[in-house]
Amino acid sequence: MGVVVPLEEKRPEDGIQLITRLVAADMDRVNRLILAKAGSNVELIPEIARHLIDSGGKRLRPMLTIAAAGLFGYAGEGHVGLAAAVEFMHTATLLHDDVVDESDMRRGRLAARMLWGNEASVLVGDFLLGQAFKMMVEVGSLESLRILADAAAVIAEGEVMQLAAAKNLVTTEDEYIAVIRAKTAALFSAAAEVGPVIADRPKADRAALRSYGLNLGLAFQLVDDALDYGGSSTALGKRVGDDFREGKITLPVILAYRRGSNEDRAFWQRVVERGETSERDLESAIDRMHRHRAIVDTIARARHYGAIARDALAPLPASEHRTALLDVVDFCVARVN
Amino acid sequence: MGVVVPLEEKRPEDGIQLITRLVAADMDRVNRLILAKAGSNVELIPEIARHLIDSGGKRLRPMLTIAAAGLFGYAGEGHVGLAAAVEFMHTATLLHDDVVDESDMRRGRLAARMLWGNEASVLVGDFLLGQAFKMMVEVGSLESLRILADAAAVIAEGEVMQLAAAKNLVTTEDEYIAVIRAKTAALFSAAAEVGPVIADRPKADRAALRSYGLNLGLAFQLVDDALDYGGSSTALGKRVGDDFREGKITLPVILAYRRGSNEDRAFWQRVVERGETSERDLESAIDRMHRHRAIVDTIARARHYGAIARDALAPLPASEHRTALLDVVDFCVARVN
Repeated sequence: MGVVVPLEEKRPEDGIQLITRLVAADMDRVNRLILAKAGSNVELIPEIARHLIDSGGKRLRPMLTIAAAGLFGYAGEGHVGLAAAVEFMHTATLLHDDVVDESDMRRGRLAARMLWGNEASVLVGDFLLGQAFKMMVEVGSLESLRILADAAAVIAEGEVMQLAAAKNLVTTEDEYIAVIRAKTAALFSAAAEVGPVIADRPKADRAALRSYGLNLGLAFQLVDDALDYGGSSTALGKRVGDDFREGKITLPVILAYRRGSNEDRAFWQRVVERGETSERDLESAIDRMHRHRAIVDTIARARHYGAIARDALAPLPASEHRTALLDVVDFCVARVN
Repeated sequence: MGVVVPLEEKRPEDGIQLITRLVAADMDRVNRLILAKAGSNVELIPEIARHLIDSGGKRLRPMLTIAAAGLFGYAGEGHVGLAAAVEFMHTATLLHDDVVDESDMRRGRLAARMLWGNEASVLVGDFLLGQAFKMMVEVGSLESLRILADAAAVIAEGEVMQLAAAKNLVTTEDEYIAVIRAKTAALFSAAAEVGPVIADRPKADRAALRSYGLNLGLAFQLVDDALDYGGSSTALGKRVGDDFREGKITLPVILAYRRGSNEDRAFWQRVVERGETSERDLESAIDRMHRHRAIVDTIARARHYGAIARDALAPLPASEHRTALLDVVDFCVARVN
């Protein structure tokens, strides 16, 4: 049983209404393409792929690609294929992640590996990655291919980094940021950068969107980390404690451990390194985090990256698309309050 | 004529009194070693080297090495040689920097290159770098050598990066942070890390000091950038506008440019890209920065890195040395207020 905190009246999702509206038509095409490309004569593949694809992710990453292309008035077709490829890369990562992390649940449902096993999850992830590259090739933008292929390699490196750092409570914040930069932020960054690339925009616009995506991704992940321990107070109806139960090292844990007393550290060693979590431990963990301001400071760090993401877009002319992308930053940070 | 702001009564230097006291005896030895190793039968070498060595730098970097070794109770002799090597690396960088940036002044005096020329400045810098490596070899810690040699290479890379980014107003904050990470923070980081290395401490202690130094270096540089435009209000009796007169791209400029109107951007293009600075331009530049919160936000970014530096040392047992190193972070950030 996780601690369930009540839904607040305020719905921070409002923050992505503008982007949702702007990309709606293109996202319909992205979703159709995703369903088409998840198909295969090998029966298990669409079954597993659809399990994740239908599970209600926000499709934030492909929306970034669509919006970033729209920001520069891109009038071609390539952004749809690239957006679908980005979502496939993300889905492949989730499938592989759950195997590596031995996760039972994903987005409130049983993880694919619990239903079809680890082997199938790994292989279907590989299939989706292959499909992603095929779609990129069809789009025909070599530079976009380079950016997304780079991201795929960096993500894999990030996974290995995390594996090496797993259960290591003395991980520094720098080391952790390096991991999430690779694991999470690299794909956000690539998803945003391919927008100006297919719109054939100059270097400065590419750098702006790359920086926007990277810092948005860092802010997004840090807020996610904070939310998994209930945020700064009570926020959203999200099940908390998933990271805790898996003994994941995230920034709130790193800060609480570093700032803690010897008794605190013994607690974290027991629950993280030796994985001995009783049901009361989650409450104690959250309590220790609050005592050392680990959660509010994780959020403060997220705000720092959010501010950099906003400044990345500052030089671009005001437009609905720019407002929408800035709203996404605020939305990501406003999820905790 | 630069704008000179009045000295405040508060002296933030108080913040480094503890570290100054703790390292005083060892720093005497470091200073003697520096003077000895700056000697040469080639007359010009000690003359130029002494010009910089005597010019009243705070010797912050070698102090970090001495304090970081003391933090772990190091009882040997190696820290003195490493600290002197660190200061030589820093001095070499200053000599080369002034040539690359075509600076006239350094620490309120004429730059060495104005007195002895560019060629001599470059070569004496090389000499000091060579002496630094000789001192490291004499200390005999291969691992310290590796760390400092890495830093030397990274610093040089940073200089080249900066050269490539020079006068480029569309530099993103990420790109700028990458430059100062290499140019400034890498040496702070190495200076701090060799402390636990020669004290033969485990990996976690090395990572803690490495992260401390890196983030302290970033905070230090960003505060320096802000101070060069007078800080958030009026602070210290520092001559302001040196960076401006050299058309240097620093974070306050990047933020003011990105956030500015078309008219603002035309101003920055004129003064930075085309180097047409009149005497009234500095005031206008500072005014534009304040209007777009470029300076206060540069300081906010510095605080972010300062907070990470503090957390890096959090797990270490409380001690006078740890307090002294934490004071250095506060001192660096408190220089602007």
